[in-house]
Amino acid sequence: MPHFADRLIEACERKSSRVCVGLDPVIEKLPSGIDRSDPIRAIEVFCREVIDAVREHAVCIKPQSACFERYGHRGVKLHEETSIYAQRAGLLVINDAKRGDIGISAAHYAVACLEHADALTINTYFGPDGIEPFVTHAAAEGKGLFALVRTSNPGGDAIQGLKLTGGGRVCDAAAKMVHEVGRSACGRSTYSLLGAVVGATKPDDAATLRELMPHAVFLVPGYGAQGAGADDVRACFNHDKLGAIITASRSVIYAHEKSPGQPWQQAVRDAAAGMREEINEILG
Amino acid sequence: MPHFADRLIEACERKSSRVCVGLDPVIEKLPSGIDRSDPIRAIEVFCREVIDAVREHAVCIKPQSACFERYGHRGVKLHEETSIYAQRAGLLVINDAKRGDIGISAAHYAVACLEHADALTINTYFGPDGIEPFVTHAAAEGKGLFALVRTSNPGGDAIQGLKLTGGGRVCDAAAKMVHEVGRSACGRSTYSLLGAVVGATKPDDAATLRELMPHAVFLVPGYGAQGAGADDVRACFNHDKLGAIITASRSVIYAHEKSPGQPWQQAVRDAAAGMREEINEILG
Repeated sequence: MPHFADRLIEACERKSSRVCVGLDPVIEKLPSGIDRSDPIRAIEVFCREVIDAVREHAVCIKPQSACFERYGHRGVKLHEETSIYAQRAGLLVINDAKRGDIGISAAHYAVACLEHADALTINTYFGPDGIEPFVTHAAAEGKGLFALVRTSNPGGDAIQGLKLTGGGRVCDAAAKMVHEVGRSACGRSTYSLLGAVVGATKPDDAATLRELMPHAVFLVPGYGAQGAGADDVRACFNHDKLGAIITASRSVIYAHEKSPGQPWQQAVRDAAAGMREEINEILG
Repeated sequence: MPHFADRLIEACERKSSRVCVGLDPVIEKLPSGIDRSDPIRAIEVFCREVIDAVREHAVCIKPQSACFERYGHRGVKLHEETSIYAQRAGLLVINDAKRGDIGISAAHYAVACLEHADALTINTYFGPDGIEPFVTHAAAEGKGLFALVRTSNPGGDAIQGLKLTGGGRVCDAAAKMVHEVGRSACGRSTYSLLGAVVGATKPDDAATLRELMPHAVFLVPGYGAQGAGADDVRACFNHDKLGAIITASRSVIYAHEKSPGQPWQQAVRDAAAGMREEINEILG
Protein backbone atom coordinates (compact mmCIF):
# COMPACT_ATOMS: atom_id res chain seq x y z
CA MET A 1 0.00 0.00 0.00
CA PRO A 2 1.46 3.43 -0.94
CA HIS A 3 2.10 6.08 1.73
CA PHE A 4 -1.11 7.42 3.29
CA ALA A 5 -0.33 11.10 2.74
CA ASP A 6 0.48 10.46 -0.91
CA ARG A 7 -2.84 8.65 -1.35
CA LEU A 8 -4.64 11.50 0.36
CA ILE A 9 -2.96 14.30 -1.60
CA GLU A 10 -3.50 12.42 -4.87
CA ALA A 11 -7.21 12.09 -4.08
CA CYS A 12 -7.46 15.80 -3.17
CA GLU A 13 -5.95 16.80 -6.50
CA ARG A 14 -7.85 14.28 -8.60
CA LYS A 15 -11.21 15.16 -7.07
CA SER A 16 -10.39 18.85 -6.66
CA SER A 17 -11.74 18.59 -3.14
CA ARG A 18 -10.55 19.05 0.44
CA VAL A 19 -13.79 17.75 1.93
CA CYS A 20 -14.23 15.11 4.61
CA VAL A 21 -17.74 14.14 5.64
CA GLY A 22 -18.19 13.10 9.25
CA LEU A 23 -20.51 10.12 9.62
CA ASP A 24 -22.12 10.61 13.05
CA PRO A 25 -25.36 8.63 12.78
CA VAL A 26 -27.77 9.36 15.64
CA ILE A 27 -31.00 7.39 15.42
CA GLU A 28 -33.28 10.28 16.43
CA LYS A 29 -31.94 12.47 13.63
CA LEU A 30 -32.31 10.09 10.69
CA PRO A 31 -34.62 11.15 7.85
CA SER A 32 -38.21 10.15 8.51
CA GLY A 33 -38.31 7.88 5.47
CA ILE A 34 -35.92 5.42 7.11
CA ASP A 35 -37.54 2.61 9.11
CA ARG A 36 -36.15 2.92 12.66
CA SER A 37 -37.59 -0.28 14.14
CA ASP A 38 -34.12 -1.87 14.10
CA PRO A 39 -31.57 0.87 14.92
CA ILE A 40 -28.60 -1.06 13.55
CA ARG A 41 -30.35 -1.67 10.23
CA ALA A 42 -31.56 1.94 10.08
CA ILE A 43 -28.04 3.28 10.61
CA GLU A 44 -26.66 0.86 8.05
CA VAL A 45 -29.09 2.09 5.39
CA PHE A 46 -28.50 5.74 6.27
CA CYS A 47 -24.70 5.44 6.17
CA ARG A 48 -24.69 3.68 2.81
CA GLU A 49 -26.96 6.27 1.26
CA VAL A 50 -24.83 9.12 2.66
CA ILE A 51 -21.69 7.49 1.26
CA ASP A 52 -23.33 7.13 -2.17
CA ALA A 53 -24.47 10.75 -2.04
CA VAL A 54 -21.11 12.31 -1.14
CA ARG A 55 -18.62 10.00 -2.85
CA GLU A 56 -18.20 12.30 -5.84
CA HIS A 57 -17.54 15.44 -3.80
CA ALA A 58 -15.68 14.23 -0.71
CA VAL A 59 -12.19 12.83 -0.38
CA CYS A 60 -12.67 11.22 3.00
CA ILE A 61 -15.44 9.85 5.15
CA LYS A 62 -14.97 9.96 8.91
CA PRO A 63 -17.18 7.53 10.86
CA GLN A 64 -17.56 8.59 14.50
CA SER A 65 -16.76 5.39 16.35
CA ALA A 66 -18.86 6.35 19.40
CA CYS A 67 -22.05 6.36 17.30
CA PHE A 68 -21.41 2.73 16.35
CA GLU A 69 -19.94 1.48 19.65
CA ARG A 70 -23.14 2.81 21.20
CA TYR A 71 -24.75 -0.42 19.96
CA GLY A 72 -22.16 -2.79 21.42
CA HIS A 73 -20.43 -5.46 19.36
CA ARG A 74 -23.21 -5.37 16.73
CA GLY A 75 -22.49 -1.66 16.27
CA VAL A 76 -18.77 -2.37 15.96
CA LYS A 77 -19.53 -4.91 13.23
CA LEU A 78 -21.58 -2.28 11.41
CA HIS A 79 -18.69 0.18 11.78
CA GLU A 80 -16.39 -2.34 10.09
CA GLU A 81 -18.89 -3.03 7.27
CA THR A 82 -19.61 0.66 6.72
CA SER A 83 -15.89 1.40 6.46
CA ILE A 84 -15.44 -1.34 3.87
CA TYR A 85 -18.43 0.00 1.92
CA ALA A 86 -16.93 3.52 1.91
CA GLN A 87 -13.53 2.29 0.76
CA ARG A 88 -15.18 0.40 -2.11
CA ALA A 89 -16.94 3.66 -3.01
CA GLY A 90 -13.53 5.26 -3.52
CA LEU A 91 -13.39 7.20 -0.27
CA LEU A 92 -10.55 7.26 2.23
CA VAL A 93 -11.85 6.25 5.65
CA ILE A 94 -10.73 8.12 8.76
CA ASN A 95 -11.76 6.14 11.84
CA ASP A 96 -12.60 8.88 14.34
CA ALA A 97 -12.07 6.75 17.44
CA LYS A 98 -9.63 9.03 19.34
CA ARG A 99 -7.73 6.10 20.75
CA GLY A 100 -4.79 6.49 23.09
CA ASP A 101 -2.57 4.18 25.10
CA ILE A 102 1.06 3.08 25.36
CA GLY A 103 3.17 0.08 24.41
CA ILE A 104 1.45 -3.06 23.28
CA SER A 105 -2.03 -1.64 24.02
CA ALA A 106 -1.37 1.19 21.57
CA ALA A 107 -0.15 -1.37 19.04
CA HIS A 108 -3.34 -3.39 19.53
CA TYR A 109 -5.47 -0.29 18.95
CA ALA A 110 -3.51 0.46 15.79
CA VAL A 111 -4.21 -3.01 14.43
CA ALA A 112 -7.87 -2.96 15.45
CA CYS A 113 -8.76 0.56 14.36
CA LEU A 114 -6.83 0.64 11.08
CA GLU A 115 -7.80 -2.80 9.77
CA HIS A 116 -10.79 -1.45 7.83
CA ALA A 117 -9.77 2.22 7.75
CA ASP A 118 -7.12 4.35 6.09
CA ALA A 119 -6.46 6.58 9.09
CA LEU A 120 -7.25 6.94 12.78
CA THR A 121 -7.53 9.85 15.21
CA ILE A 122 -5.34 9.42 18.33
CA ASN A 123 -4.67 11.19 21.60
CA THR A 124 -1.48 13.11 22.51
CA TYR A 125 -1.64 13.36 26.31
CA PHE A 126 0.56 10.27 26.86
CA GLY A 127 3.55 11.83 25.10
CA PRO A 128 5.70 10.39 22.29
CA ASP A 129 5.54 6.79 23.51
CA GLY A 130 1.77 7.05 23.17
CA ILE A 131 2.14 7.96 19.48
CA GLU A 132 5.11 5.94 18.25
CA PRO A 133 3.46 2.47 18.35
CA PHE A 134 0.66 3.84 16.16
CA VAL A 135 3.19 5.35 13.74
CA THR A 136 5.13 2.09 13.49
CA HIS A 137 2.02 0.13 12.53
CA ALA A 138 0.67 2.83 10.21
CA ALA A 139 4.01 3.10 8.39
CA ALA A 140 4.10 -0.65 7.76
CA GLU A 141 0.54 -0.70 6.40
CA GLY A 142 0.37 2.53 4.38
CA LYS A 143 -2.07 4.02 6.86
CA GLY A 144 -2.33 7.46 8.50
CA LEU A 145 -2.95 9.10 11.87
CA PHE A 146 -4.34 12.41 13.10
CA ALA A 147 -3.21 13.35 16.59
CA LEU A 148 -5.41 15.62 18.72
CA VAL A 149 -3.56 18.93 18.98
CA ARG A 150 -6.26 21.61 19.13
CA THR A 151 -9.90 20.64 19.49
CA SER A 152 -12.81 22.84 18.46
CA ASN A 153 -14.96 22.57 21.61
CA PRO A 154 -15.57 25.59 23.89
CA GLY A 155 -13.69 23.98 26.81
CA GLY A 156 -10.65 23.12 24.71
CA ASP A 157 -8.63 25.96 26.25
CA ALA A 158 -8.77 24.48 29.76
CA ILE A 159 -5.74 22.30 29.05
CA GLN A 160 -4.71 23.04 25.45
CA GLY A 161 -4.63 26.82 25.94
CA LEU A 162 -2.51 26.91 29.10
CA LYS A 163 0.63 29.06 28.77
CA LEU A 164 4.03 27.45 29.34
CA THR A 165 7.02 28.96 31.13
CA GLY A 166 9.17 28.16 28.10
CA GLY A 167 6.83 30.10 25.79
CA GLY A 168 3.79 29.01 23.81
CA ARG A 169 0.84 26.98 25.00
CA VAL A 170 0.16 23.30 25.65
CA CYS A 171 -1.24 22.84 22.14
CA ASP A 172 1.97 24.32 20.69
CA ALA A 173 4.00 21.77 22.68
CA ALA A 174 1.73 19.00 21.39
CA ALA A 175 2.29 20.36 17.86
CA LYS A 176 6.07 20.30 18.26
CA MET A 177 5.88 16.73 19.52
CA VAL A 178 3.73 15.69 16.56
CA HIS A 179 6.21 17.37 14.21
CA GLU A 180 9.18 15.61 15.83
CA VAL A 181 7.59 12.16 15.81
CA GLY A 182 6.12 12.52 12.33
CA ARG A 183 8.88 14.26 10.38
CA SER A 184 10.68 11.02 9.57
CA ALA A 185 7.49 9.46 8.18
CA CYS A 186 6.88 11.70 5.16
CA GLY A 187 5.85 10.46 1.75
CA ARG A 188 6.80 11.72 -1.73
CA SER A 189 4.30 14.56 -1.26
CA THR A 190 6.47 15.84 1.68
CA TYR A 191 3.50 15.24 3.99
CA SER A 192 3.77 12.88 6.95
CA LEU A 193 1.53 9.95 7.74
CA LEU A 194 1.15 11.62 11.16
CA GLY A 195 -1.29 14.51 10.78
CA ALA A 196 -3.02 16.65 13.39
CA VAL A 197 -6.55 17.50 14.43
CA VAL A 198 -6.71 21.30 14.46
CA GLY A 199 -10.12 22.78 15.10
CA ALA A 200 -11.12 25.73 12.94
CA THR A 201 -11.40 28.12 15.84
CA LYS A 202 -9.27 31.26 15.57
CA PRO A 203 -7.15 31.95 12.48
CA ASP A 204 -4.16 33.02 14.63
CA ASP A 205 -4.09 29.60 16.25
CA ALA A 206 -4.18 27.79 12.95
CA ALA A 207 -1.36 29.92 11.51
CA THR A 208 0.93 29.22 14.48
CA LEU A 209 0.20 25.51 14.38
CA ARG A 210 0.69 25.44 10.60
CA GLU A 211 4.22 26.82 11.12
CA LEU A 212 5.00 24.35 13.89
CA MET A 213 3.88 21.34 11.83
CA PRO A 214 4.84 22.05 8.20
CA HIS A 215 4.63 18.37 7.19
CA ALA A 216 1.40 17.49 8.97
CA VAL A 217 -1.94 17.21 7.20
CA PHE A 218 -4.52 19.03 9.30
CA LEU A 219 -7.88 17.40 9.88
CA VAL A 220 -10.06 20.43 10.57
CA PRO A 221 -13.38 20.08 12.40
CA GLY A 222 -15.62 23.03 13.23
CA TYR A 223 -16.73 23.97 9.71
CA GLY A 224 -20.47 24.25 9.16
CA ALA A 225 -22.58 23.53 12.23
CA GLN A 226 -19.82 24.70 14.58
CA GLY A 227 -19.57 28.03 12.75
CA ALA A 228 -15.98 28.40 11.50
CA GLY A 229 -15.53 30.71 8.52
CA ALA A 230 -13.30 31.21 5.50
CA ASP A 231 -10.39 32.91 7.30
CA ASP A 232 -10.19 30.15 9.90
CA VAL A 233 -9.99 27.53 7.22
CA ARG A 234 -7.52 29.37 4.94
CA ALA A 235 -4.85 29.44 7.65
CA CYS A 236 -4.94 25.65 7.91
CA PHE A 237 -3.58 25.17 4.39
CA ASN A 238 0.00 25.44 3.22
CA HIS A 239 0.99 27.69 0.29
CA ASP A 240 0.58 24.67 -2.01
CA LYS A 241 -3.18 24.81 -1.21
CA LEU A 242 -2.79 21.38 0.30
CA GLY A 243 -2.16 20.03 3.78
CA ALA A 244 -5.66 20.32 5.20
CA ILE A 245 -8.87 18.32 5.06
CA ILE A 246 -11.95 20.20 6.22
CA THR A 247 -14.54 18.05 7.90
CA ALA A 248 -18.22 18.65 8.54
CA SER A 249 -20.77 16.25 9.92
CA ARG A 250 -24.20 17.55 10.87
CA SER A 251 -24.34 20.31 8.24
CA VAL A 252 -23.92 17.67 5.52
CA ILE A 253 -25.46 14.42 6.71
CA TYR A 254 -28.53 16.11 8.21
CA ALA A 255 -28.86 18.71 5.45
CA HIS A 256 -32.40 17.46 4.81
CA GLU A 257 -33.51 19.25 7.99
CA LYS A 258 -33.02 22.58 6.21
CA SER A 259 -34.30 21.55 2.76
CA PRO A 260 -37.47 19.55 3.35
CA GLY A 261 -38.82 19.81 -0.18
CA GLN A 262 -36.57 17.25 -1.86
CA PRO A 263 -35.27 13.70 -1.35
CA TRP A 264 -32.93 13.74 1.66
CA GLN A 265 -30.14 12.12 -0.33
CA GLN A 266 -30.23 15.09 -2.73
CA ALA A 267 -29.92 17.53 0.17
CA VAL A 268 -26.87 15.63 1.43
CA ARG A 269 -25.32 15.58 -2.04
CA ASP A 270 -25.92 19.31 -2.50
CA ALA A 271 -24.44 20.12 0.91
CA ALA A 272 -21.25 18.18 0.14
CA ALA A 273 -20.99 19.80 -3.30
CA GLY A 274 -21.59 23.25 -1.82
CA MET A 275 -18.93 22.74 0.83
CA ARG A 276 -16.42 21.65 -1.79
CA GLU A 277 -17.17 24.82 -3.81
CA GLU A 278 -16.85 27.12 -0.80
CA ILE A 279 -13.49 25.70 0.21
CA ASN A 280 -12.15 25.76 -3.34
CA GLU A 281 -13.16 29.44 -3.54
CA ILE A 282 -11.27 30.17 -0.31
CA LEU A 283 -8.19 28.52 -1.83
CA GLY A 284 -8.58 30.70 -4.96
CA MET B 1 -27.64 1.44 41.77
CA PRO B 2 -25.78 3.05 44.73
CA HIS B 3 -23.00 5.60 44.14
CA PHE B 4 -19.92 4.08 42.51
CA ALA B 5 -17.42 5.39 45.07
CA ASP B 6 -19.53 4.05 47.93
CA ARG B 7 -19.66 0.63 46.28
CA LEU B 8 -15.90 0.72 45.74
CA ILE B 9 -15.02 1.84 49.28
CA GLU B 10 -17.41 -0.73 50.74
CA ALA B 11 -15.71 -3.48 48.73
CA CYS B 12 -12.23 -2.28 49.79
CA GLU B 13 -13.20 -2.46 53.45
CA ARG B 14 -15.12 -5.72 53.21
CA LYS B 15 -12.32 -7.50 51.33
CA SER B 16 -9.52 -5.67 53.14
CA SER B 17 -7.96 -5.08 49.73
CA ARG B 18 -6.93 -2.17 47.52
CA VAL B 19 -6.03 -4.42 44.60
CA CYS B 20 -7.13 -4.12 40.98
CA VAL B 21 -5.98 -6.74 38.50
CA GLY B 22 -5.43 -5.56 34.94
CA LEU B 23 -6.71 -8.05 32.39
CA ASP B 24 -4.44 -7.53 29.37
CA PRO B 25 -4.66 -10.83 27.51
CA VAL B 26 -2.02 -11.21 24.80
CA ILE B 27 -2.24 -14.48 22.93
CA GLU B 28 1.51 -15.11 22.82
CA LYS B 29 1.80 -14.85 26.59
CA LEU B 30 -0.97 -17.25 27.62
CA PRO B 31 0.03 -20.31 29.65
CA SER B 32 1.07 -23.19 27.42
CA GLY B 33 -1.78 -25.39 28.69
CA ILE B 34 -4.35 -23.22 26.93
CA ASP B 35 -5.26 -24.25 23.38
CA ARG B 36 -4.47 -21.25 21.18
CA SER B 37 -5.96 -22.51 17.91
CA ASP B 38 -8.88 -20.08 18.28
CA PRO B 39 -7.51 -16.88 19.86
CA ILE B 40 -10.94 -15.62 20.97
CA ARG B 41 -11.73 -18.88 22.70
CA ALA B 42 -8.25 -19.03 24.26
CA ILE B 43 -8.57 -15.52 25.68
CA GLU B 44 -12.06 -16.31 26.96
CA VAL B 45 -10.81 -19.33 28.89
CA PHE B 46 -7.77 -17.46 30.22
CA CYS B 47 -9.79 -14.45 31.41
CA ARG B 48 -12.36 -16.57 33.21
CA GLU B 49 -9.70 -18.56 35.00
CA VAL B 50 -7.86 -15.38 36.02
CA ILE B 51 -11.11 -13.91 37.35
CA ASP B 52 -11.78 -17.08 39.36
CA ALA B 53 -8.23 -17.03 40.70
CA VAL B 54 -8.18 -13.40 41.88
CA ARG B 55 -11.80 -12.81 42.93
CA GLU B 56 -11.08 -13.39 46.59
CA HIS B 57 -8.11 -11.01 46.77
CA ALA B 58 -8.94 -8.22 44.30
CA VAL B 59 -11.59 -5.54 44.51
CA CYS B 60 -11.59 -4.65 40.81
CA ILE B 61 -10.73 -6.20 37.51
CA LYS B 62 -9.61 -3.90 34.71
CA PRO B 63 -9.96 -5.35 31.21
CA GLN B 64 -7.71 -3.55 28.73
CA SER B 65 -10.11 -2.80 25.89
CA ALA B 66 -7.35 -2.76 23.25
CA CYS B 67 -6.57 -6.43 23.87
CA PHE B 68 -10.18 -7.32 23.01
CA GLU B 69 -10.79 -4.76 20.24
CA ARG B 70 -7.71 -6.28 18.61
CA TYR B 71 -10.07 -9.05 17.43
CA GLY B 72 -12.72 -6.80 15.92
CA HIS B 73 -16.39 -7.09 16.82
CA ARG B 74 -15.91 -10.68 18.03
CA GLY B 75 -13.34 -9.37 20.50
CA VAL B 76 -15.73 -6.63 21.62
CA LYS B 77 -18.37 -9.28 22.26
CA LEU B 78 -15.87 -11.22 24.37
CA HIS B 79 -15.04 -8.02 26.27
CA GLU B 80 -18.73 -7.63 27.11
CA GLU B 81 -19.08 -11.27 28.18
CA THR B 82 -15.88 -11.19 30.25
CA SER B 83 -17.06 -8.07 32.07
CA ILE B 84 -20.38 -9.71 32.91
CA TYR B 85 -18.56 -12.81 34.14
CA ALA B 86 -16.35 -10.67 36.41
CA GLN B 87 -19.31 -8.77 37.84
CA ARG B 88 -21.05 -12.05 38.64
CA ALA B 89 -17.85 -13.13 40.41
CA GLY B 90 -18.28 -10.15 42.74
CA LEU B 91 -15.65 -7.91 41.17
CA LEU B 92 -16.08 -4.29 40.15
CA VAL B 93 -15.18 -3.91 36.48
CA ILE B 94 -13.12 -0.93 35.31
CA ASN B 95 -13.27 -0.74 31.53
CA ASP B 96 -9.80 0.53 30.62
CA ALA B 97 -10.78 1.97 27.26
CA LYS B 98 -9.38 5.51 27.70
CA ARG B 99 -12.21 7.06 25.72
CA GLY B 100 -12.46 10.75 25.01
CA ASP B 101 -14.73 13.00 22.98
CA ILE B 102 -17.19 15.85 23.42
CA GLY B 103 -20.95 16.34 23.37
CA ILE B 104 -23.13 13.55 22.11
CA SER B 105 -20.13 11.42 21.09
CA ALA B 106 -18.90 11.45 24.70
CA ALA B 107 -22.41 10.53 25.83
CA HIS B 108 -22.45 7.63 23.36
CA TYR B 109 -19.11 6.36 24.68
CA ALA B 110 -20.42 6.59 28.23
CA VAL B 111 -23.43 4.44 27.34
CA ALA B 112 -21.37 1.94 25.35
CA CYS B 113 -18.42 1.56 27.69
CA LEU B 114 -20.32 1.53 30.99
CA GLU B 115 -23.14 -0.81 29.97
CA HIS B 116 -21.31 -3.91 31.21
CA ALA B 117 -18.75 -2.16 33.47
CA ASP B 118 -18.78 -0.27 36.75
CA ALA B 119 -16.24 2.36 35.70
CA LEU B 120 -14.36 3.66 32.66
CA THR B 121 -11.04 5.40 32.08
CA ILE B 122 -11.36 8.66 30.12
CA ASN B 123 -9.13 11.33 28.63
CA THR B 124 -8.71 14.90 29.92
CA TYR B 125 -7.19 16.74 26.94
CA PHE B 126 -10.56 18.04 25.67
CA GLY B 127 -11.21 20.03 28.85
CA PRO B 128 -14.32 20.02 31.09
CA ASP B 129 -16.81 19.56 28.25
CA GLY B 130 -14.97 16.35 27.39
CA ILE B 131 -15.61 15.04 30.92
CA GLU B 132 -19.05 16.35 31.87
CA PRO B 133 -21.13 14.16 29.51
CA PHE B 134 -19.43 11.09 31.01
CA VAL B 135 -20.14 12.34 34.55
CA THR B 136 -23.81 12.98 33.75
CA HIS B 137 -24.31 9.43 32.50
CA ALA B 138 -22.23 7.84 35.27
CA ALA B 139 -24.14 9.74 37.97
CA ALA B 140 -27.47 8.54 36.60
CA GLU B 141 -26.33 4.92 36.49
CA GLY B 142 -24.26 4.57 39.67
CA LYS B 143 -21.10 4.20 37.62
CA GLY B 144 -17.61 5.69 37.96
CA LEU B 145 -14.85 7.29 35.89
CA PHE B 146 -11.07 7.62 36.13
CA ALA B 147 -9.67 10.57 34.18
CA LEU B 148 -6.09 10.40 32.90
CA VAL B 149 -4.11 12.91 34.95
CA ARG B 150 -0.61 11.43 35.31
CA THR B 151 0.36 8.37 33.31
CA SER B 152 3.16 6.01 34.28
CA ASN B 153 4.96 5.76 30.93
CA PRO B 154 8.48 7.17 30.42
CA GLY B 155 7.27 9.78 27.90
CA GLY B 156 4.47 11.02 30.14
CA ASP B 157 6.40 14.18 31.03
CA ALA B 158 6.41 15.46 27.43
CA ILE B 159 2.98 17.03 27.90
CA GLN B 160 1.93 16.26 31.49
CA GLY B 161 5.18 17.55 33.03
CA LEU B 162 5.32 20.92 31.25
CA LYS B 163 5.54 23.89 33.62
CA LEU B 164 2.84 26.57 33.48
CA THR B 165 3.30 30.34 33.79
CA GLY B 166 0.66 30.37 36.52
CA GLY B 167 2.58 27.78 38.57
CA GLY B 168 2.40 24.01 38.60
CA ARG B 169 2.48 21.64 35.66
CA VAL B 170 -0.02 20.46 33.08
CA CYS B 171 -0.92 17.40 35.18
CA ASP B 172 -1.64 19.71 38.13
CA ALA B 173 -4.02 21.73 35.95
CA ALA B 174 -5.69 18.51 34.84
CA ALA B 175 -6.00 17.53 38.51
CA LYS B 176 -7.63 20.85 39.40
CA MET B 177 -10.08 20.41 36.54
CA VAL B 178 -10.93 16.88 37.68
CA HIS B 179 -11.47 18.17 41.22
CA GLU B 180 -13.74 20.98 40.01
CA VAL B 181 -15.87 18.78 37.77
CA GLY B 182 -16.05 15.90 40.26
CA ARG B 183 -16.52 17.64 43.60
CA SER B 184 -20.29 17.88 43.20
CA ALA B 185 -20.57 14.16 42.47
CA CYS B 186 -19.44 12.71 45.82
CA GLY B 187 -21.12 9.82 47.58
CA ARG B 188 -21.66 9.18 51.29
CA SER B 189 -18.02 8.09 51.52
CA THR B 190 -16.97 11.68 50.53
CA TYR B 191 -15.35 10.24 47.42
CA SER B 192 -16.44 11.34 43.95
CA LEU B 193 -17.57 9.13 41.09
CA LEU B 194 -14.89 10.97 39.08
CA GLY B 195 -11.52 9.52 40.03
CA ALA B 196 -8.09 9.96 38.47
CA VAL B 197 -5.43 7.77 36.90
CA VAL B 198 -2.21 8.65 38.73
CA GLY B 199 0.79 6.52 37.82
CA ALA B 200 2.96 5.37 40.70
CA THR B 201 6.03 7.20 39.51
CA LYS B 202 7.54 9.65 42.02
CA PRO B 203 6.10 10.01 45.54
CA ASP B 204 6.34 13.84 45.34
CA ASP B 205 4.02 13.83 42.34
CA ALA B 206 1.47 11.63 44.04
CA ALA B 207 1.47 13.78 47.19
CA THR B 208 0.84 16.98 45.23
CA LEU B 209 -1.95 15.38 43.20
CA ARG B 210 -3.47 13.86 46.34
CA GLU B 211 -3.76 17.39 47.80
CA LEU B 212 -5.25 18.80 44.59
CA MET B 213 -7.90 16.06 44.35
CA PRO B 214 -8.96 15.21 47.92
CA HIS B 215 -12.23 13.57 46.81
CA ALA B 216 -10.89 11.57 43.88
CA VAL B 217 -10.17 7.87 44.05
CA PHE B 218 -6.79 7.27 42.42
CA LEU B 219 -6.40 4.37 40.04
CA VAL B 220 -2.67 3.71 40.29
CA PRO B 221 -0.85 1.77 37.55
CA GLY B 222 2.88 1.13 37.64
CA TYR B 223 3.01 -1.33 40.53
CA GLY B 224 4.77 -4.61 39.88
CA ALA B 225 6.15 -4.99 36.36
CA GLN B 226 6.64 -1.22 35.99
CA GLY B 227 8.67 -1.09 39.21
CA ALA B 228 6.93 1.33 41.58
CA GLY B 229 7.61 0.77 45.28
CA ALA B 230 6.01 1.22 48.67
CA ASP B 231 6.68 4.97 49.05
CA ASP B 232 5.19 5.73 45.66
CA VAL B 233 2.04 3.89 46.55
CA ARG B 234 1.68 5.23 50.11
CA ALA B 235 1.41 8.81 48.88
CA CYS B 236 -1.60 7.90 46.73
CA PHE B 237 -3.79 7.13 49.76
CA ASN B 238 -5.59 9.58 52.01
CA HIS B 239 -5.16 9.49 55.79
CA ASP B 240 -8.22 7.23 55.97
CA LYS B 241 -6.13 4.57 54.18
CA LEU B 242 -8.64 4.75 51.36
CA GLY B 243 -8.86 6.69 48.13
CA ALA B 244 -6.56 4.59 45.96
CA ILE B 245 -6.80 1.35 44.02
CA ILE B 246 -3.45 -0.11 43.03
CA THR B 247 -3.47 -1.96 39.74
CA ALA B 248 -1.08 -4.53 38.32
CA SER B 249 -1.44 -6.55 35.16
CA ARG B 250 1.52 -8.56 33.93
CA SER B 251 3.00 -9.29 37.37
CA VAL B 252 -0.25 -11.00 38.34
CA ILE B 253 -1.85 -12.50 35.25
CA TYR B 254 1.43 -13.83 33.87
CA ALA B 255 2.82 -14.83 37.29
CA HIS B 256 3.20 -18.39 35.99
CA GLU B 257 6.24 -17.27 33.99
CA LYS B 258 8.16 -16.89 37.24
CA SER B 259 6.76 -19.94 39.06
CA PRO B 260 6.78 -22.78 36.52
CA GLY B 261 6.44 -25.62 39.04
CA GLN B 262 2.73 -25.24 39.84
CA PRO B 263 -0.62 -24.84 38.05
CA TRP B 264 -0.65 -21.38 36.44
CA GLN B 265 -3.93 -20.49 38.15
CA GLN B 266 -2.25 -21.01 41.52
CA ALA B 267 0.60 -18.66 40.53
CA VAL B 268 -1.97 -16.01 39.59
CA ARG B 269 -3.86 -16.50 42.84
CA ASP B 270 -0.66 -16.27 44.90
CA ALA B 271 0.45 -13.12 43.07
CA ALA B 272 -2.86 -11.37 43.77
CA ALA B 273 -2.79 -12.48 47.41
CA GLY B 274 0.82 -11.33 47.77
CA MET B 275 0.06 -7.94 46.27
CA ARG B 276 -2.86 -7.50 48.65
CA GLU B 277 -0.58 -8.31 51.59
CA GLU B 278 2.19 -5.94 50.46
CA ILE B 279 -0.19 -3.02 50.06
CA ASN B 280 -1.93 -3.70 53.37
CA GLU B 281 1.50 -3.69 55.03
CA ILE B 282 2.30 -0.32 53.46
CA LEU B 283 -0.98 1.03 54.86
CA GLY B 284 -0.02 -0.29 58.31
